[in-house]
Amino acid sequence: MRLRKIKNATEKIKQFTNIVIFEPANYKGKWCELFKNDNPIYIEIGMGKGKFILENAKINPDINYIGIEIAESVILKAAQKINEFNLSNLYIINVDASNLDSYFEKNEISKIFLNFSDPWPKSRHEKRRLTSNIYLALYRDILIKDGIIELKSDNRKLFEYSIMKFNEKGYIFLDFSLDLHNQLNNYDHQIITTEYEEKFKSLGQVIYYIKVEVK
Amino acid sequence: MRLRKIKNATEKIKQFTNIVIFEPANYKGKWCELFKNDNPIYIEIGMGKGKFILENAKINPDINYIGIEIAESVILKAAQKINEFNLSNLYIINVDASNLDSYFEKNEISKIFLNFSDPWPKSRHEKRRLTSNIYLALYRDILIKDGIIELKSDNRKLFEYSIMKFNEKGYIFLDFSLDLHNQLNNYDHQIITTEYEEKFKSLGQVIYYIKVEVK
Repeated sequence: MRLRKIKNATEKIKQFTNIVIFEPANYKGKWCELFKNDNPIYIEIGMGKGKFILENAKINPDINYIGIEIAESVILKAAQKINEFNLSNLYIINVDASNLDSYFEKNEISKIFLNFSDPWPKSRHEKRRLTSNIYLALYRDILIKDGIIELKSDNRKLFEYSIMKFNEKGYIFLDFSLDLHNQLNNYDHQIITTEYEEKFKSLGQVIYYIKVEVK
Repeated sequence: MRLRKIKNATEKIKQFTNIVIFEPANYKGKWCELFKNDNPIYIEIGMGKGKFILENAKINPDINYIGIEIAESVILKAAQKINEFNLSNLYIINVDASNLDSYFEKNEISKIFLNFSDPWPKSRHEKRRLTSNIYLALYRDILIKDGIIELKSDNRKLFEYSIMKFNEKGYIFLDFSLDLHNQLNNYDHQIITTEYEEKFKSLGQVIYYIKVEVK
């Protein structure tokens, strides 16, 4: 599912000014002005080609979504897809999530989605995992009180690591499944899948899932 | 692996006074007198035929073990097996774990093992699960400060339930594996298996594992 680099992606992406926010730091603490309402803001870190966040935005008009993706060729694909719809509750930004606090103010975000994040299996890359101490500190900063993180993964080691980290940092577990598509537990809504997830599902691989709340 | 009821088990078990403690309430707060030392006491709730606790006792002479099993025919099998060895650090008791506080004093136990406990899948049987609120309160009572619970299970739903409960009650996760025999994480010692576990392993089923500390 990895995407080959698209030629002139930097140029091509510029036509999507209605969807891609090119200077997101300008909106820090002011995203509600862009959305023109005070609805809760959900972000997805590493949204890939955007299937998950686009489907969410379509069925939840009263929630604002911001998709984050570092790879330019990938975000271009997402922009092209999102452009087929006329949505006022979804924007995407092409930034590195390690600078999240440059783009979002304290208590500005209600929910963070982490879907099939890179597992970074080597110990020396631990800091890059999206549930490492560094990232969890960033999330705590930008999330509202009672803010939520929902994580899905097919990677056992990343999931085990994330569970240990969430527990260590005192998050409250709201839901937890070791086979999301086979058992819904309290998962009370339609399961919106990512591109990766569809592939894993079709291969019969289990998808791990956890939903936690900031204490 | 379920054992057929053994005829006259009640009578037969009486010959093992060297291994089975018939009035365990008499030792509440005084187990160290029986063991004749102050070594930490580990208990296994639902020890079955005793393979796991027997192997533990054999390789850890400086730890005292008490195996708990409610089924008389099963504990008889355990007694027969343990009787082949001359161990001074292992006793077994034939009681219902819901009365744990009748047999153990506050802070008397250092570690509790829960291996392949009955999942009691129906909601109306939730209280019987060995990680329900009732049991976790009993464990907190008899465990020392920094006491440990180690749980192994092949049952996804029971494991998911237990993780949620441990998190809810503020336990610290010390180790966590979604495939114990395939990845050791911080599991720093030989994996001693139960009878059930050997069967599941041979079938290629994953064994879930968690080690938590009372906060």
